[in-house]
Amino acid sequence: MKLYDFSLFPNPRRARIFIAEKALQIPIEQVDALAGANRTPEFLKKNPSGGLPVLELDDGSCLAESVAICRYLEGLHPNPNLMGRDSREQAFIEQWNRRMELELFAVAARFFQNTGAFFKGRVPQVPEYGELQRANVVQRLRRMDAELAGREFVAADRYTIADITALVGIDLFCGYGGQPFPADLANLKRWHQAVSSRPSAKA
Amino acid sequence: MKLYDFSLFPNPRRARIFIAEKALQIPIEQVDALAGANRTPEFLKKNPSGGLPVLELDDGSCLAESVAICRYLEGLHPNPNLMGRDSREQAFIEQWNRRMELELFAVAARFFQNTGAFFKGRVPQVPEYGELQRANVVQRLRRMDAELAGREFVAADRYTIADITALVGIDLFCGYGGQPFPADLANLKRWHQAVSSRPSAKA
Repeated sequence: MKLYDFSLFPNPRRARIFIAEKALQIPIEQVDALAGANRTPEFLKKNPSGGLPVLELDDGSCLAESVAICRYLEGLHPNPNLMGRDSREQAFIEQWNRRMELELFAVAARFFQNTGAFFKGRVPQVPEYGELQRANVVQRLRRMDAELAGREFVAADRYTIADITALVGIDLFCGYGGQPFPADLANLKRWHQAVSSRPSAKA
Repeated sequence: MKLYDFSLFPNPRRARIFIAEKALQIPIEQVDALAGANRTPEFLKKNPSGGLPVLELDDGSCLAESVAICRYLEGLHPNPNLMGRDSREQAFIEQWNRRMELELFAVAARFFQNTGAFFKGRVPQVPEYGELQRANVVQRLRRMDAELAGREFVAADRYTIADITALVGIDLFCGYGGQPFPADLANLKRWHQAVSSRPSAKA
Protein backbone atom coordinates (compact mmCIF):
# COMPACT_ATOMS: atom_id res chain seq x y z
CA MET A 1 0.00 0.00 0.00
CA LYS A 2 1.12 3.55 -0.69
CA LEU A 3 -0.40 6.97 -0.05
CA TYR A 4 0.05 9.67 -2.67
CA ASP A 5 0.15 12.86 -0.70
CA PHE A 6 0.84 16.55 -1.03
CA SER A 7 1.77 17.88 2.34
CA LEU A 8 0.46 21.42 1.78
CA PHE A 9 -3.10 20.42 0.86
CA PRO A 10 -5.88 19.95 3.40
CA ASN A 11 -7.49 16.76 2.06
CA PRO A 12 -4.29 14.69 2.27
CA ARG A 13 -3.88 15.97 5.82
CA ARG A 14 -7.24 14.42 6.71
CA ALA A 15 -5.95 11.03 5.58
CA ARG A 16 -2.56 11.48 7.27
CA ILE A 17 -4.16 12.33 10.63
CA PHE A 18 -6.48 9.33 10.32
CA ILE A 19 -3.52 7.05 9.57
CA ALA A 20 -1.56 8.49 12.49
CA GLU A 21 -4.48 7.95 14.90
CA LYS A 22 -4.48 4.31 13.88
CA ALA A 23 -0.69 4.13 14.16
CA LEU A 24 -0.44 2.60 10.68
CA GLN A 25 2.80 2.54 8.77
CA ILE A 26 1.95 3.35 5.15
CA PRO A 27 4.65 4.55 2.75
CA ILE A 28 3.99 8.07 1.52
CA GLU A 29 4.93 9.53 -1.84
CA GLN A 30 4.72 13.27 -2.40
CA VAL A 31 3.03 14.45 -5.59
CA ASP A 32 4.01 18.06 -6.20
CA ALA A 33 0.66 19.53 -7.12
CA LEU A 34 2.14 23.03 -7.34
CA ALA A 35 4.32 21.78 -10.19
CA GLY A 36 1.35 20.02 -11.81
CA ALA A 37 2.49 16.50 -10.95
CA ASN A 38 -1.14 15.58 -10.19
CA ARG A 39 -2.13 16.44 -13.76
CA THR A 40 0.30 14.20 -15.62
CA PRO A 41 -1.21 11.37 -17.72
CA GLU A 42 0.46 8.89 -15.35
CA PHE A 43 -1.15 10.35 -12.24
CA LEU A 44 -4.53 10.82 -13.92
CA LYS A 45 -4.59 7.06 -14.44
CA LYS A 46 -4.52 6.77 -10.65
CA ASN A 47 -7.15 9.46 -10.11
CA PRO A 48 -8.80 10.97 -13.20
CA SER A 49 -10.11 13.83 -11.03
CA GLY A 50 -6.50 14.81 -10.25
CA GLY A 51 -7.17 15.12 -6.53
CA LEU A 52 -5.04 14.05 -3.61
CA PRO A 53 -4.76 11.92 -1.56
CA VAL A 54 -4.86 8.61 -3.43
CA LEU A 55 -4.28 5.24 -1.79
CA GLU A 56 -2.67 2.66 -4.07
CA LEU A 57 -3.57 -0.85 -2.92
CA ASP A 58 -1.29 -3.85 -3.17
CA ASP A 59 -3.10 -5.10 -6.29
CA GLY A 60 -2.45 -1.75 -7.99
CA SER A 61 -6.02 -0.44 -7.62
CA CYS A 62 -6.18 3.22 -6.70
CA LEU A 63 -8.68 4.67 -4.27
CA ALA A 64 -9.26 8.42 -4.19
CA GLU A 65 -11.26 10.71 -1.87
CA SER A 66 -9.97 11.10 1.67
CA VAL A 67 -13.13 9.85 3.39
CA ALA A 68 -13.28 6.75 1.16
CA ILE A 69 -9.63 6.05 1.99
CA CYS A 70 -10.43 6.39 5.69
CA ARG A 71 -13.37 4.00 5.36
CA TYR A 72 -11.17 1.41 3.66
CA LEU A 73 -8.51 1.66 6.36
CA GLU A 74 -11.17 1.55 9.09
CA GLY A 75 -12.37 -1.76 7.63
CA LEU A 76 -8.86 -3.19 7.71
CA HIS A 77 -7.95 -1.76 11.12
CA PRO A 78 -11.13 -1.19 13.17
CA ASN A 79 -9.27 -0.06 16.33
CA PRO A 80 -9.07 2.61 17.52
CA ASN A 81 -12.49 3.15 16.04
CA LEU A 82 -12.90 6.49 14.23
CA MET A 83 -16.02 5.98 12.10
CA GLY A 84 -18.49 4.07 14.27
CA ARG A 85 -18.71 0.65 15.90
CA ASP A 86 -22.10 -0.36 14.49
CA SER A 87 -24.27 0.91 11.69
CA ARG A 88 -26.22 3.26 13.92
CA GLU A 89 -23.10 4.92 15.27
CA GLN A 90 -21.57 4.94 11.79
CA ALA A 91 -24.58 6.88 10.54
CA PHE A 92 -24.45 9.50 13.30
CA ILE A 93 -20.71 9.98 12.89
CA GLU A 94 -21.20 10.31 9.14
CA GLN A 95 -23.90 12.93 9.81
CA TRP A 96 -21.40 14.97 11.82
CA ASN A 97 -18.55 14.40 9.43
CA ARG A 98 -20.72 15.65 6.58
CA ARG A 99 -21.79 18.70 8.56
CA MET A 100 -18.17 19.52 9.32
CA GLU A 101 -17.23 18.95 5.68
CA LEU A 102 -20.14 20.62 3.89
CA GLU A 103 -20.82 23.45 6.34
CA LEU A 104 -17.23 24.23 7.42
CA PHE A 105 -14.31 22.56 5.61
CA ALA A 106 -15.62 22.96 2.04
CA VAL A 107 -16.90 26.48 2.74
CA ALA A 108 -13.48 27.49 4.10
CA ALA A 109 -11.90 25.99 0.98
CA ARG A 110 -14.17 28.00 -1.34
CA PHE A 111 -13.41 31.14 0.66
CA PHE A 112 -9.69 30.57 0.20
CA GLN A 113 -9.96 29.55 -3.47
CA ASN A 114 -11.91 32.69 -4.32
CA THR A 115 -9.86 35.19 -2.33
CA GLY A 116 -6.39 33.77 -1.72
CA ALA A 117 -3.36 35.10 -3.56
CA PHE A 118 -2.19 31.51 -3.93
CA PHE A 119 -5.06 30.73 -6.34
CA LYS A 120 -4.72 33.90 -8.41
CA GLY A 121 -4.14 32.85 -12.02
CA ARG A 122 -4.65 29.19 -11.09
CA VAL A 123 -8.45 29.17 -10.97
CA PRO A 124 -11.06 31.81 -11.81
CA GLN A 125 -11.70 33.75 -8.62
CA VAL A 126 -14.89 35.55 -7.60
CA PRO A 127 -13.92 37.50 -4.47
CA GLU A 128 -17.51 38.56 -3.76
CA TYR A 129 -18.50 34.92 -3.51
CA GLY A 130 -15.44 34.17 -1.38
CA GLU A 131 -16.40 36.87 1.13
CA LEU A 132 -19.86 35.35 1.52
CA GLN A 133 -18.20 32.03 2.30
CA ARG A 134 -15.97 33.68 4.90
CA ALA A 135 -19.06 34.99 6.68
CA ASN A 136 -20.62 31.51 6.50
CA VAL A 137 -17.58 29.94 8.15
CA VAL A 138 -17.60 32.50 10.97
CA GLN A 139 -21.28 31.85 11.56
CA ARG A 140 -20.73 28.07 11.53
CA LEU A 141 -17.90 28.37 14.05
CA ARG A 142 -20.26 30.19 16.43
CA ARG A 143 -22.75 27.35 16.14
CA MET A 144 -19.95 24.85 16.66
CA ASP A 145 -18.99 26.60 19.86
CA ALA A 146 -22.54 26.16 21.16
CA GLU A 147 -22.59 22.52 20.06
CA LEU A 148 -19.37 21.83 21.95
CA ALA A 149 -20.72 23.33 25.19
CA GLY A 150 -22.00 20.00 26.38
CA ARG A 151 -19.47 17.67 24.90
CA GLU A 152 -15.81 16.98 24.43
CA PHE A 153 -15.80 15.93 20.76
CA VAL A 154 -17.80 16.73 17.66
CA ALA A 155 -19.68 13.52 16.94
CA ALA A 156 -19.38 11.03 19.80
CA ASP A 157 -17.96 10.47 23.28
CA ARG A 158 -14.55 10.07 21.68
CA TYR A 159 -12.36 11.47 18.91
CA THR A 160 -13.66 10.55 15.44
CA ILE A 161 -13.22 11.40 11.78
CA ALA A 162 -15.58 14.36 12.31
CA ASP A 163 -12.99 15.96 14.61
CA ILE A 164 -10.36 15.48 11.92
CA THR A 165 -12.49 17.17 9.26
CA ALA A 166 -13.33 20.08 11.56
CA LEU A 167 -9.70 20.54 12.65
CA VAL A 168 -8.38 20.59 9.09
CA GLY A 169 -11.15 22.95 8.00
CA ILE A 170 -10.46 25.42 10.79
CA ASP A 171 -6.70 25.29 10.27
CA LEU A 172 -7.25 25.95 6.55
CA PHE A 173 -9.43 28.95 7.38
CA CYS A 174 -7.10 30.41 10.00
CA GLY A 175 -3.83 29.25 8.42
CA TYR A 176 -3.81 29.67 4.64
CA GLY A 177 -7.02 31.70 4.85
CA GLY A 178 -5.31 34.15 7.24
CA GLN A 179 -8.40 34.57 9.42
CA PRO A 180 -8.12 35.11 13.17
CA PHE A 181 -9.10 32.17 15.34
CA PRO A 182 -12.26 33.30 17.16
CA ALA A 183 -10.69 33.27 20.62
CA ASP A 184 -13.92 34.44 22.28
CA LEU A 185 -15.45 31.06 21.50
CA ALA A 186 -14.32 29.25 24.64
CA ASN A 187 -15.69 25.79 23.86
CA LEU A 188 -14.30 25.85 20.36
CA LYS A 189 -10.94 27.00 21.69
CA ARG A 190 -10.83 24.23 24.31
CA TRP A 191 -11.72 21.62 21.67
CA HIS A 192 -9.21 23.02 19.15
CA GLN A 193 -6.40 22.97 21.71
CA ALA A 194 -7.26 19.40 22.67
CA VAL A 195 -7.33 18.00 19.13
CA SER A 196 -4.30 20.06 18.08
CA SER A 197 -2.25 18.69 20.93
CA ARG A 198 -2.71 15.08 19.79
CA PRO A 199 0.44 13.82 18.06
CA SER A 200 -1.65 13.01 14.95
CA ALA A 201 -2.25 16.72 14.33
CA LYS A 202 1.37 17.02 13.16
CA ALA A 203 1.09 14.16 10.68
CA MET B 1 -39.42 5.62 11.99
CA LYS B 2 -40.45 8.67 9.98
CA LEU B 3 -38.82 10.61 7.15
CA TYR B 4 -39.14 14.37 7.15
CA ASP B 5 -39.17 15.29 3.50
CA PHE B 6 -39.74 18.19 1.15
CA SER B 7 -40.67 16.81 -2.21
CA LEU B 8 -39.25 19.69 -4.27
CA PHE B 9 -35.71 19.51 -2.87
CA PRO B 10 -32.97 17.31 -4.31
CA ASN B 11 -31.44 15.91 -1.09
CA PRO B 12 -34.71 14.39 0.16
CA ARG B 13 -35.14 12.84 -3.30
CA ARG B 14 -31.85 10.99 -2.81
CA ALA B 15 -33.22 9.40 0.36
CA ARG B 16 -36.62 8.65 -1.22
CA ILE B 17 -35.02 6.86 -4.19
CA PHE B 18 -32.79 4.86 -1.83
CA ILE B 19 -35.82 3.84 0.26
CA ALA B 20 -37.78 2.89 -2.88
CA GLU B 21 -34.90 0.74 -4.18
CA LYS B 22 -34.99 -1.16 -0.88
CA ALA B 23 -38.80 -1.35 -1.03
CA LEU B 24 -39.05 -0.01 2.53
CA GLN B 25 -42.28 1.39 3.90
CA ILE B 26 -41.35 4.47 5.94
CA PRO B 27 -43.98 7.08 6.78
CA ILE B 28 -43.19 10.45 5.21
CA GLU B 29 -44.05 13.87 6.56
CA GLN B 30 -43.72 16.92 4.36
CA VAL B 31 -41.94 19.95 5.85
CA ASP B 32 -42.81 22.98 3.75
CA ALA B 33 -39.40 24.58 3.43
CA LEU B 34 -40.76 27.28 1.12
CA ALA B 35 -42.94 28.43 4.01
CA GLY B 36 -40.00 28.21 6.44
CA ALA B 37 -41.28 25.13 8.27
CA ASN B 38 -37.69 23.82 8.42
CA ARG B 39 -36.64 26.93 10.39
CA THR B 40 -39.11 26.69 13.26
CA PRO B 41 -37.67 26.08 16.75
CA GLU B 42 -39.44 22.71 16.75
CA PHE B 43 -37.81 21.53 13.53
CA LEU B 44 -34.40 22.93 14.46
CA LYS B 45 -34.47 20.60 17.45
CA LYS B 46 -34.57 17.73 14.95
CA ASN B 47 -31.87 19.21 12.71
CA PRO B 48 -30.12 22.40 13.88
CA SER B 49 -28.77 22.88 10.34
CA GLY B 50 -32.34 23.15 9.06
CA GLY B 51 -31.70 20.75 6.18
CA LEU B 52 -33.90 18.01 4.83
CA PRO B 53 -34.29 15.05 4.83
CA VAL B 54 -34.26 14.00 8.49
CA LEU B 55 -34.96 10.47 9.66
CA GLU B 56 -36.63 10.26 13.06
CA LEU B 57 -35.87 6.94 14.72
CA ASP B 58 -38.24 5.02 16.95
CA ASP B 59 -36.43 6.26 20.07
CA GLY B 60 -36.94 9.86 18.95
CA SER B 61 -33.34 10.44 17.83
CA CYS B 62 -33.07 12.41 14.61
CA LEU B 63 -30.55 11.65 11.89
CA ALA B 64 -29.86 14.26 9.21
CA GLU B 65 -27.82 14.21 5.98
CA SER B 66 -29.13 12.06 3.15
CA VAL B 67 -26.05 9.86 2.85
CA ALA B 68 -25.96 9.20 6.61
CA ILE B 69 -29.65 8.23 6.46
CA CYS B 70 -28.87 5.88 3.58
CA ARG B 71 -26.03 4.28 5.53
CA TYR B 72 -28.28 3.71 8.53
CA LEU B 73 -30.96 2.07 6.38
CA GLU B 74 -28.34 0.00 4.55
CA GLY B 75 -27.22 -1.37 7.92
CA LEU B 76 -30.79 -2.35 8.83
CA HIS B 77 -31.67 -3.68 5.36
CA PRO B 78 -28.54 -4.80 3.54
CA ASN B 79 -30.36 -6.12 0.47
CA PRO B 80 -30.51 -5.04 -2.25
CA ASN B 81 -27.05 -3.74 -1.51
CA LEU B 82 -26.52 -0.11 -2.57
CA MET B 83 -23.39 0.92 -0.64
CA GLY B 84 -21.00 -2.04 -0.82
CA ARG B 85 -20.94 -5.63 0.40
CA ASP B 86 -17.55 -5.46 2.16
CA SER B 87 -15.29 -2.67 3.30
CA ARG B 88 -13.29 -2.61 0.08
CA GLU B 89 -16.39 -2.29 -2.08
CA GLN B 90 -17.87 0.21 0.37
CA ALA B 91 -14.78 2.38 -0.04
CA PHE B 92 -14.87 2.33 -3.85
CA ILE B 93 -18.60 3.06 -3.95
CA GLU B 94 -18.03 5.92 -1.49
CA GLN B 95 -15.26 7.23 -3.76
CA TRP B 96 -17.73 7.38 -6.66
CA ASN B 97 -20.57 8.72 -4.58
CA ARG B 98 -18.32 11.54 -3.40
CA ARG B 99 -17.18 12.30 -6.94
CA MET B 100 -20.79 12.48 -8.09
CA GLU B 101 -21.68 14.63 -5.11
CA LEU B 102 -18.70 16.99 -4.94
CA GLU B 103 -17.97 17.27 -8.68
CA LEU B 104 -21.53 17.19 -10.03
CA PHE B 105 -24.49 17.36 -7.61
CA ALA B 106 -23.12 20.09 -5.32
CA VAL B 107 -21.75 22.08 -8.26
CA ALA B 108 -25.14 21.97 -9.99
CA ALA B 109 -26.74 23.11 -6.73
CA ARG B 110 -24.37 26.09 -6.44
CA PHE B 111 -25.05 26.99 -10.08
CA PHE B 112 -28.79 27.02 -9.38
CA GLN B 113 -28.49 28.83 -6.04
CA ASN B 114 -26.44 31.62 -7.60
CA THR B 115 -28.45 32.08 -10.81
CA GLY B 116 -31.99 30.73 -10.28
CA ALA B 117 -34.93 33.09 -9.94
CA PHE B 118 -36.21 30.82 -7.18
CA PHE B 119 -33.34 31.85 -4.88
CA LYS B 120 -33.56 35.58 -5.60
CA GLY B 121 -34.10 37.34 -2.29
CA ARG B 122 -33.73 34.07 -0.37
CA VAL B 123 -29.93 33.84 -0.43
CA PRO B 124 -27.23 36.26 -1.63
CA GLN B 125 -26.58 35.39 -5.27
CA VAL B 126 -23.34 35.85 -7.21
CA PRO B 127 -24.29 35.12 -10.84
CA GLU B 128 -20.67 35.26 -12.04
CA TYR B 129 -19.79 32.42 -9.66
CA GLY B 130 -22.91 30.51 -10.70
CA GLU B 131 -21.91 30.66 -14.36
CA LEU B 132 -18.51 29.19 -13.55
CA GLN B 133 -20.26 26.33 -11.81
CA ARG B 134 -22.48 25.76 -14.84
CA ALA B 135 -19.38 25.35 -16.98
CA ASN B 136 -17.91 22.95 -14.42
CA VAL B 137 -21.02 20.77 -14.53
CA VAL B 138 -20.97 20.62 -18.34
CA GLN B 139 -17.32 19.63 -18.26
CA ARG B 140 -17.97 16.96 -15.61
CA LEU B 141 -20.84 15.50 -17.66
CA ARG B 142 -18.46 15.08 -20.61
CA ARG B 143 -16.05 13.17 -18.38
CA MET B 144 -18.92 11.11 -17.04
CA ASP B 145 -19.87 10.15 -20.59
CA ALA B 146 -16.36 8.82 -21.14
CA GLU B 147 -16.40 6.97 -17.82
CA LEU B 148 -19.68 5.26 -18.73
CA ALA B 149 -18.32 4.03 -22.08
CA GLY B 150 -17.16 0.77 -20.60
CA ARG B 151 -19.75 0.22 -17.92
CA GLU B 152 -23.43 0.16 -17.16
CA PHE B 153 -23.42 1.98 -13.81
CA VAL B 154 -21.34 4.67 -12.11
CA ALA B 155 -19.55 2.79 -9.33
CA ALA B 156 -19.97 -0.98 -9.65
CA ASP B 157 -21.47 -3.75 -11.75
CA ARG B 158 -24.85 -2.81 -10.36
CA TYR B 159 -26.97 0.19 -9.40
CA THR B 160 -25.65 1.93 -6.25
CA ILE B 161 -26.01 5.11 -4.24
CA ALA B 162 -23.57 6.78 -6.66
CA ASP B 163 -26.13 6.39 -9.47
CA ILE B 164 -28.75 8.01 -7.23
CA THR B 165 -26.52 11.02 -6.48
CA ALA B 166 -25.64 11.45 -10.15
CA LEU B 167 -29.25 11.15 -11.29
CA VAL B 168 -30.52 13.70 -8.79
CA GLY B 169 -27.66 16.06 -9.62
CA ILE B 170 -28.32 15.91 -13.37
CA ASP B 171 -32.07 16.29 -12.93
CA LEU B 172 -31.45 19.34 -10.73
CA PHE B 173 -29.18 20.85 -13.39
CA CYS B 174 -31.50 20.14 -16.32
CA GLY B 175 -34.80 20.52 -14.43
CA TYR B 176 -34.75 23.46 -12.01
CA GLY B 177 -31.50 24.66 -13.54
CA GLY B 178 -33.14 24.80 -16.98
CA GLN B 179 -30.07 23.48 -18.79
CA PRO B 180 -30.40 21.25 -21.86
CA PHE B 181 -29.54 17.60 -21.35
CA PRO B 182 -26.35 17.05 -23.40
CA ALA B 183 -27.98 14.66 -25.89
CA ASP B 184 -24.74 14.23 -27.85
CA LEU B 185 -23.28 12.30 -24.89
CA ALA B 186 -24.52 8.84 -25.89
CA ASN B 187 -23.24 6.88 -22.91
CA LEU B 188 -24.59 9.42 -20.45
CA LYS B 189 -27.94 9.41 -22.25
CA ARG B 190 -28.17 5.61 -22.18
CA TRP B 191 -27.32 5.56 -18.47
CA HIS B 192 -29.74 8.39 -17.68
CA GLN B 193 -32.58 6.66 -19.51
CA ALA B 194 -31.85 3.41 -17.69
CA VAL B 195 -31.78 4.88 -14.18
CA SER B 196 -34.72 7.19 -14.90
CA SER B 197 -36.88 4.26 -16.02
CA ARG B 198 -36.50 2.48 -12.68
CA PRO B 199 -39.68 2.90 -10.60
CA SER B 200 -37.56 4.42 -7.78
CA ALA B 201 -36.83 7.49 -9.92
CA LYS B 202 -40.42 8.65 -9.36
CA ALA B 203 -40.21 8.30 -5.58
